[in-house]
Amino acid sequence: MAIKTLQDLFIHELSDIYSAEKQMSKALPRLARAAENPDLEAAFAAHLEETQGQIERIDKVVDLLDIKLKRIKCAAMEGLVEEGKEVIEAVAKGPVRDAALIGGAQKVEHYEIASYGTLCELGKQLGYSDAVKLLKETLAEEKATDEKLTMLAESGANAKAAEA
Amino acid sequence: MAIKTLQDLFIHELSDIYSAEKQMSKALPRLARAAENPDLEAAFAAHLEETQGQIERIDKVVDLLDIKLKRIKCAAMEGLVEEGKEVIEAVAKGPVRDAALIGGAQKVEHYEIASYGTLCELGKQLGYSDAVKLLKETLAEEKATDEKLTMLAESGANAKAAEA
Repeated sequence: MAIKTLQDLFIHELSDIYSAEKQMSKALPRLARAAENPDLEAAFAAHLEETQGQIERIDKVVDLLDIKLKRIKCAAMEGLVEEGKEVIEAVAKGPVRDAALIGGAQKVEHYEIASYGTLCELGKQLGYSDAVKLLKETLAEEKATDEKLTMLAESGANAKAAEA
Repeated sequence: MAIKTLQDLFIHELSDIYSAEKQMSKALPRLARAAENPDLEAAFAAHLEETQGQIERIDKVVDLLDIKLKRIKCAAMEGLVEEGKEVIEAVAKGPVRDAALIGGAQKVEHYEIASYGTLCELGKQLGYSDAVKLLKETLAEEKATDEKLTMLAESGANAKAAEA
């Protein structure tokens, strides 16, 4: 049994999202290139920069708590990244692909929202108030990105796709 | 290019979540057995019943729109189910495992929230108002389940785990 305490679980969850963020930072340039809508392309580029900041924030949490992350690969994000690749292969560049990319990106955001939500709750129980403050900043960013993607879906991309 | 129109994308997304729900309905009895907290066990049992209703709702959407689902396996849910199995292996039965199960279940709920959110938006653009009504019912259920899990995390399970 590798996970015995709530702190072990916190470290496990933090290691998982660290892997997820790293995978996402590799996938985002591909997603940006695959988009046709310039607003969507810009959103992916902006989120890449944000993701790099979120990785640095995890590094800060690690330093703050003097813990060591485990080397694990987040299997769920592997699946999400794989689905993103499949979409790019299955749909030609244009408004339908843009709608698919937005849907895929929202699944990623929701994975991260759930993950940071759990980390904030575990951190609160463990009394890690400074770490929770940092994790809440990331959680707010992920929620804002999800809302931005919803607006993009509602406004431009999908309407254009329905006409196509 | 297998997906050309917004309707193709809608069918693809619906096929994906159909696979996800089927995988989840297989995983939920295992999650219920793995839980120690009786409230959490009951929540998983209730969600299994709900999931079966959600699968039937997808069948209704398929009938309504006279479409045919594709046989695909949702890779992201495969990853999420795999992570659930790993947690059960890595953590002994008790409050820490319960906290881990809640976190994992919330990732699943958020995957489904993102997926049904996209389906509702695509359906709206395509003028599928009756189908969207059904999909919105499921979306509301997934959000309610997520909130129930948050309450369980805040109230009992994690606090007990911090004491352990």
